[in-house]
Amino acid sequence: MKKAREKKRIGSKLRIIPLGGLEQIGMNITAFEFEGSILVVDCGLAFPEDDMFGIDLVIPDITYLEENRDKVKGFVITHGHEDHIGALPYVLKRLNVPVYATRLTMGLIEHKLMEHDLLESTRRCVVTFGQTVKLGSFSVEFIKTNHSIVDAAALAITCPVGTIVHTGDFKVDYTPVFGDAIDLQRFGELGRQGVLALMCDSTNAERAGSTASERTVGGTIDHLFQEHRDTRIIIATFASNVDRVRQIINSACRYGRKVLVEGRSMVNIIETATRLGYLNVPENTLIDADQLRNFPGEQTVIITTGSQGESMAALSRMAEDMHRRITIGPGDTVIFSSNPIPGNEKAVTHVINKLLRKGADVIFQDVHVSGHACQEDIKLIYTLVQPRYAIPVHGEYRHLKAQAKIARDLGYDRDSIFILNSGDVLELDEETARVNGRVQVGAVLVDGLGVGDVGNVVLRDRQHLAEDGIVIVCFALDPSGRTLTAGPEITSRGFVYVKEADALMEEADQVVREAIEKCLGSRGSSDRNRFRTAVKNSLGDFFWRKTMRRPMILPMILEV
Amino acid sequence: MKKAREKKRIGSKLRIIPLGGLEQIGMNITAFEFEGSILVVDCGLAFPEDDMFGIDLVIPDITYLEENRDKVKGFVITHGHEDHIGALPYVLKRLNVPVYATRLTMGLIEHKLMEHDLLESTRRCVVTFGQTVKLGSFSVEFIKTNHSIVDAAALAITCPVGTIVHTGDFKVDYTPVFGDAIDLQRFGELGRQGVLALMCDSTNAERAGSTASERTVGGTIDHLFQEHRDTRIIIATFASNVDRVRQIINSACRYGRKVLVEGRSMVNIIETATRLGYLNVPENTLIDADQLRNFPGEQTVIITTGSQGESMAALSRMAEDMHRRITIGPGDTVIFSSNPIPGNEKAVTHVINKLLRKGADVIFQDVHVSGHACQEDIKLIYTLVQPRYAIPVHGEYRHLKAQAKIARDLGYDRDSIFILNSGDVLELDEETARVNGRVQVGAVLVDGLGVGDVGNVVLRDRQHLAEDGIVIVCFALDPSGRTLTAGPEITSRGFVYVKEADALMEEADQVVREAIEKCLGSRGSSDRNRFRTAVKNSLGDFFWRKTMRRPMILPMILEV
Repeated sequence: MKKAREKKRIGSKLRIIPLGGLEQIGMNITAFEFEGSILVVDCGLAFPEDDMFGIDLVIPDITYLEENRDKVKGFVITHGHEDHIGALPYVLKRLNVPVYATRLTMGLIEHKLMEHDLLESTRRCVVTFGQTVKLGSFSVEFIKTNHSIVDAAALAITCPVGTIVHTGDFKVDYTPVFGDAIDLQRFGELGRQGVLALMCDSTNAERAGSTASERTVGGTIDHLFQEHRDTRIIIATFASNVDRVRQIINSACRYGRKVLVEGRSMVNIIETATRLGYLNVPENTLIDADQLRNFPGEQTVIITTGSQGESMAALSRMAEDMHRRITIGPGDTVIFSSNPIPGNEKAVTHVINKLLRKGADVIFQDVHVSGHACQEDIKLIYTLVQPRYAIPVHGEYRHLKAQAKIARDLGYDRDSIFILNSGDVLELDEETARVNGRVQVGAVLVDGLGVGDVGNVVLRDRQHLAEDGIVIVCFALDPSGRTLTAGPEITSRGFVYVKEADALMEEADQVVREAIEKCLGSRGSSDRNRFRTAVKNSLGDFFWRKTMRRPMILPMILEV
Repeated sequence: MKKAREKKRIGSKLRIIPLGGLEQIGMNITAFEFEGSILVVDCGLAFPEDDMFGIDLVIPDITYLEENRDKVKGFVITHGHEDHIGALPYVLKRLNVPVYATRLTMGLIEHKLMEHDLLESTRRCVVTFGQTVKLGSFSVEFIKTNHSIVDAAALAITCPVGTIVHTGDFKVDYTPVFGDAIDLQRFGELGRQGVLALMCDSTNAERAGSTASERTVGGTIDHLFQEHRDTRIIIATFASNVDRVRQIINSACRYGRKVLVEGRSMVNIIETATRLGYLNVPENTLIDADQLRNFPGEQTVIITTGSQGESMAALSRMAEDMHRRITIGPGDTVIFSSNPIPGNEKAVTHVINKLLRKGADVIFQDVHVSGHACQEDIKLIYTLVQPRYAIPVHGEYRHLKAQAKIARDLGYDRDSIFILNSGDVLELDEETARVNGRVQVGAVLVDGLGVGDVGNVVLRDRQHLAEDGIVIVCFALDPSGRTLTAGPEITSRGFVYVKEADALMEEADQVVREAIEKCLGSRGSSDRNRFRTAVKNSLGDFFWRKTMRRPMILPMILEV
């Protein structure tokens, strides 16, 4: 320790290294490094982009952490959303370090660890708000915030060069429906003591004003229950929004309705929240699907997943008549207590259309508030914390840029604002801050059980196959390459409907035969690649001329 | 004619048959049939859904028209957007009948016909507003409306049982930037005379209030030009919105900027609009890309395509550094004079992020107004036309339903409102209206030169290939099926990166060999399908167990 202190005096720097999350929504993970210690804030996944065919989820490349595994003291998690905890099981398999989180967040993490059979092997530390934990050279204080999931925390990360405040995802809710409002006093106190840098949520930095309280949605829901007394109510929302579920259940009790919870993730989270004391459902309120028929529709409410139009979620299955136990029809009121996340608009609209066609009344506007701070809230945090440096986080570039503009409006000059890229190493000491170097970062694709075995080559092939299909040409040659001993057989998938393309495929057969003939017995005919190239080129040209499509062409040559 | 009149007295009915456009946005086409006459309103295309891999566009199935080709008197086109004219070249190839449209609309149609070498063979009749054309038993009057493309028309379609008013896509613009406001007087006059049914645009039927005038955007643009005097301006909008382009050019002239037009469709439409007198660009305003360097940035504006984030459009190519002549950087202001069409949000946001990263200032909010009537405008048209029956058109089911609600609010009872499906036959006479029967309808997929040769089988294969890739197993048998004479060779595409999956593929080879061994010489071994099934099943199970993926497995068997 003495040596470390001396080192500090001669200018050790804090290194902040985002390993993901700054190029897209999701995959939040940031390393803080000081001398021999690394702590990591969050460990989230991202959902695949539209052109990542077949990919289930995307996790961060943690090569940098693996290369410095001895330094890594643990993961500190701000809250329990997938984009902050989803990669943990994958990463912990490669890097077994302790995980620190508040109680509900830890409950959700444990559920994941269980699925991956990691519960036993993972050291877990539940932290309360106001508590400070030591991780190597760092001490980390958990500060109460508000968000669309309960138990969300901001972090005050202190090392010898100063304190960094990281907000996590947050909003300012003066009238939360459960627990306390965000601990603004502590933000102010820390600011008064001096904060080196603020890493603040940018998601809503393009939106003017302040984010409305979760409580306002409760009022809306109550109003809707009153208005639709005579119908069954089906209400879709985000599974993890325990406060939203709480308010729906409150309205249900007030209007004498039984509550059925549908959708695996919704059931899980309600179970976890209830077990940990975050949700207290009055007795005789919950029913299961078999009991549904025992009550008239106007005495029941179904809380369900599927608010984003996810094709396998409960609401989508109801809309498509594929739900085993719930059929939607006239006399149902379906409420979307959610807004479509960008990219999900068409899927949501598809479900809405289906539900309307079944005769249901569908309400999809203004039954939701955001979980993220808008511009005035962000200004509030800056004004309380008064950091020396501003580091916008959480959001796409446009959002980071919008927060940078807010910081500029608050008087920060360009040199005090850092919009980082994943992999950038930001070095700070008491006096200075600058980006100095980069580390390896990237997206690791998870497809089924495969982690990282689908890369760019495979994805490009999938895109090609999706676009134009594949034509396989199979034939056999003698070892010398002078005689065609069998074939060619031509088969296609995803190209044309062969039964109606007889003529085309017959011509193709001719084209292939000619290409093979030319290679047979020619110089270098023992080189299979000559045959391959000849077939690819001639058939490729032929199909382009005839169809203006470029199917993947795959020659397969056997030797007989 | 005498006979026809008698027939009418004994109850001939008008049949309204939407052949597309009621299940999705796009592909608008509706047949009106009375006795021996059919007229068709619009002939649009739809853009492919996300899961229609490789499809370029979608056109309606016109089997019903082909089966009644002797009756079809012509196409009457409301306006020049793709979802109203885009399928014409494909359909005219199978059904050569006259086309009626206003002047600019016809100009855009002619451009298409030229590309398909149909200009000579197609009879074209340019119609002016207020003019009535006769098509068999029908007379059709073109009525001036406003829309996001000039020369949009509503239609008053009259046959012996009454008059149908079809609004086309429209808005109510009291202060249009070019030409007259919508001819509300004529709507009123027709209503006073008696209108049997109103087919009214539903696109914005969920939106309260009235749609703002196109002129308001001009004010916004002017303001932005004033605010950004010191930078180059790049402004993206819909190519077909001639009035928007007009207003941008006006602002450019006012602030002394030269105008460069980028993007093929934008150049085309400006050329057509100018040639036909719909756009009058002052001399010495337009420059070409080579001249751009001769002017300082603050004296130029680039009007470009790409407002929807289309990957090949000019703005996207600029954002990706793939545009040959235009490079974007600090000192550029990029304005999106558009809103993202649902489904394009992510693509647009991607372009915005790229542009911001290049240092450009990007403005993407509130520089656009809709081209469709909102709720109060729809009420206005109903109140003027006072139809006996309401038939909401143009929109997804949710939008049709929203218009139905408006009609209900206006006092129409359920029996007077018809939400039709494509293919429904609505029969009307002076007294009654009811859906009676269905005709064949559907979506014909266009992929390259192929029209209709990609159907469900091919699409399903493409989806499967995209999701999990393909594994091809190739081997040769002797004719008796007792000896494996060559192979097996296993190749995959889009499944795993083979170079890193050696072990997996070696095991797979073993699995295949065992499956083949078992079939060799067994009873029925001359049946190739036994081999195929055995390979498919064993390899499918193996890969699922090992990877939780289900690649398409394609055995190919040669005979040697």
